[in-house]
Amino acid sequence: MALRVGVIGGGQLARMMIAPAVELGLDLRVLAEDEGMSAQLAATAVGDYRDIDTVRAFVKDVDVVTFDHEHVPQEVLRALVADGVAVHPGPDALQYAQDKLVMRARLSELGVPQPDWAAVRGVDELQAFLDDHGGKAVVKTPRGGYDGKGVRVVRSADEASDWFDALAPGAGTDALLVEELVSFSRELAQQIARRPSGQMMSYPVVETVQRDGVCAEVFAPAPAASDRLARVAEAIGRQIAEGLGVTGMLAVELFETDDERILVNELAMRPHNSGHWSQDGAVTGQFEQHLRAVADLPLGDTTPRAAWAAMVNILGGPAEGGFEDRFDAAMSEQPSAKIHTYGKAARPGRKVGHVNVSGDDLDDVVYTARAAAAHFV
Amino acid sequence: MALRVGVIGGGQLARMMIAPAVELGLDLRVLAEDEGMSAQLAATAVGDYRDIDTVRAFVKDVDVVTFDHEHVPQEVLRALVADGVAVHPGPDALQYAQDKLVMRARLSELGVPQPDWAAVRGVDELQAFLDDHGGKAVVKTPRGGYDGKGVRVVRSADEASDWFDALAPGAGTDALLVEELVSFSRELAQQIARRPSGQMMSYPVVETVQRDGVCAEVFAPAPAASDRLARVAEAIGRQIAEGLGVTGMLAVELFETDDERILVNELAMRPHNSGHWSQDGAVTGQFEQHLRAVADLPLGDTTPRAAWAAMVNILGGPAEGGFEDRFDAAMSEQPSAKIHTYGKAARPGRKVGHVNVSGDDLDDVVYTARAAAAHFV
Repeated sequence: MALRVGVIGGGQLARMMIAPAVELGLDLRVLAEDEGMSAQLAATAVGDYRDIDTVRAFVKDVDVVTFDHEHVPQEVLRALVADGVAVHPGPDALQYAQDKLVMRARLSELGVPQPDWAAVRGVDELQAFLDDHGGKAVVKTPRGGYDGKGVRVVRSADEASDWFDALAPGAGTDALLVEELVSFSRELAQQIARRPSGQMMSYPVVETVQRDGVCAEVFAPAPAASDRLARVAEAIGRQIAEGLGVTGMLAVELFETDDERILVNELAMRPHNSGHWSQDGAVTGQFEQHLRAVADLPLGDTTPRAAWAAMVNILGGPAEGGFEDRFDAAMSEQPSAKIHTYGKAARPGRKVGHVNVSGDDLDDVVYTARAAAAHFV
Repeated sequence: MALRVGVIGGGQLARMMIAPAVELGLDLRVLAEDEGMSAQLAATAVGDYRDIDTVRAFVKDVDVVTFDHEHVPQEVLRALVADGVAVHPGPDALQYAQDKLVMRARLSELGVPQPDWAAVRGVDELQAFLDDHGGKAVVKTPRGGYDGKGVRVVRSADEASDWFDALAPGAGTDALLVEELVSFSRELAQQIARRPSGQMMSYPVVETVQRDGVCAEVFAPAPAASDRLARVAEAIGRQIAEGLGVTGMLAVELFETDDERILVNELAMRPHNSGHWSQDGAVTGQFEQHLRAVADLPLGDTTPRAAWAAMVNILGGPAEGGFEDRFDAAMSEQPSAKIHTYGKAARPGRKVGHVNVSGDDLDDVVYTARAAAAHFV
C-alpha cells in the first residue's frame, strides 16, 4: 500500500505537493479549511484544524502528518503525538516557527547570528530599546504574522501602543518582540531539508526581493554570492535544522548586511515561497523533498538544473477574467516560462501563482520570468 | 473558470497529465475504465469508453476531450464531433493510429519512407510477399496490437494462418498487414506536438531500446545522431503531424537502417513511453505539452535541460512487497534519480513505473537510471 501522507491545510503549498506525490506514488490526503481551496484535488476532509476531534478523525488514515502552514495549535499537535501519530515537523520544533519570541530566545542559546532583540512588555521597555538603537526598531507580534502582517517599523514606542493594548491574557504571550532595524544590503534565504533520522540536504542560498513585506522575486543561487557567504548560510541552516529538531523543509530568511554579515530574520518549517524556484530549477524540488523528509525517505539531489533560476510571484492576479484568458499571450511570448497557478480568486496583493524560469544567463532568466508573470496582473 | 480537459482512459498516461494540469491550473477530468486505476485521483467518471451514452455523459462537463489510449471506437468519436465536442486528436487523425493498414496506405500517399508493406487477405498473398522479401517478414494485426502484441515475425505463411482464420466479418478489417523485416541498426522515436491551429513543436529524436517488443530504455537525444539524421527525423514527424492532421502529442517510432535511412515503424497520437524522459529532461514535458496542444494553448519550449537524459522502465515491479519497500535503498543509492510509479499492481512484464535521469555524461546518466530502476524489480 502506498505511503499515506496527511497534510493539514489546503493552501497552495499543499497543492504543490500533489504533483510530486502523484509521480512518486505517495497517497497525499489533505485536511482543507474549506471546499474549493487550492489543494482541493487531494482534499479528503474539510474542517477546522484547531478542533482536535476533526484532526483526530483525519489522521486516522494516514502514516505521517505534515502541514501547509504553522497555525495548528500546540495542544492539538501534542495530543496527536500522545496518540502515537508521526507528526513532522513535531510540536517541539514547530513552537519556534509559531512564536517569534521563543525562536529568538532559542537562536540566542544556539549562538546563531541574529539582530539585537528583546521581549518588551510595555511602551517603557520598547522606548528603552529604541533609545539604545538609534531611535528606530522593528516591532513584531510574536504569533500569527505573515507576509508583512504583524510587523511594524517604529520610531516611537507610542506607535505600538495598540499592540500592547491587545496583549490581553489568553493571547498566548504577554510581550511583543522588538528587533534592531538592520541595515541590510539584500535579503537571502537558505532552504534545507531534514529527515527524522537526521539526514540533511541543503539548497544553494538564494536572494529574495520583498515588496510591501511580501516575497516578489527570488534569484537562485544568490547572484555574486561568495563561497564564504554560501558556506555560512548553509552552516546556519544546518545548525538551526539540527538545533531546533526540524523535520521536513526549513526556510531560513536572512539579512545580508553591508559588511557581509548574515543575520537570521525569520524561519518557516515547510516548503516556502523562497524555494519555489526548485520545482523546475533543481533536480529535486522542495515539495518532493518535503514529502521525502516527512516520510523519512532518503533525500533527493538538490543540484540546480541550470546556472540560474528566477521565480517571480503573480500577486493579485488578473483584474478581469481568469488566468486562462492570459495563457495565450503569456505562453506564446515566453515559451520557456513554467507557469504555476494556485486556483485562487484574484484579490489585490494576494499570492495567486508564480513563474519559474531557468537558464544560463541571469538577465535573460529574470527578464523572461518577469515578462511572463506580468501577463497575469 | 479553469479550462476543463477530459481524458478518456485512466491509465498511466492520464495519471502523468495530473501533475502538469495541477501546476498550470487546468481542470483535468478522467473517464476511467475501473475504480482504482492509475489516474484515480483525477477520475470523475467510471465506465465503458465504447458506450456512447457513458462518453456523452462524461464530456458534458469538459471543454476538450483527449485520450489515454487510441481504442475509442470511430463511431463514438464521430458522434462526439457531431455533437459539437472538441475532440483532440479527432477521429480523422486517430483512424491512422487505430488501423495500421490505413496508416501504411496514407504514409505511402504522403511519400513518407517506410518498410515495404502489403495488405494480405490470405496465406497465398502472404506467401507471395515472403517469396519477394527473402522468405521472412513481419505480420501484424491491423488493430488492437500494442507492446509487441499483434506482431509476429514469420518465415512461412502458415505461421499466420490462425490470424487469417480470425479475420471474420465484423473484425473491422479483412486483411493482415505484412511488412518487410527491416535490417535496422537501432530504433529511434520522434516526438512532436501540434495544436489545432497548426503550431508544431518538436523534441530531439531519441533512441529507444525494446525488449520482447516492450520499450525498455530511452536515451535522449539519440547518441551519435548526425545533424542530418536529427533533421530528417524531425521533418518526418512534421510531415506526419500535418499530413494526418494530428492534434496533441505524436510519437513516430522509427527504424534506423545500417545505411542510415530512416523508416517509419509505428505511430502513437498521445504522450508515449519514448517521451517520458521529457518530464524531467526538457523544459516542457510531453504531458504538459499534450495538454497545451489539445487545449489549443501555445506550445512550450522543448529544449533539453541537460546534455543527456535516460529513461529506464520498471517492468514487472517488485516481486514481493510494494514500491515503498524499495524506496529506501533506491533513493539513498541514487539521489538524482526521478522515480515515477503508476499505482499498478506488480505483474511480470507490466509497465509499472520508470526512472528518469539527466546530466552531462551519457554513461553516468544511463548507469544511474538503470541502477535506480533495478531496485524495483
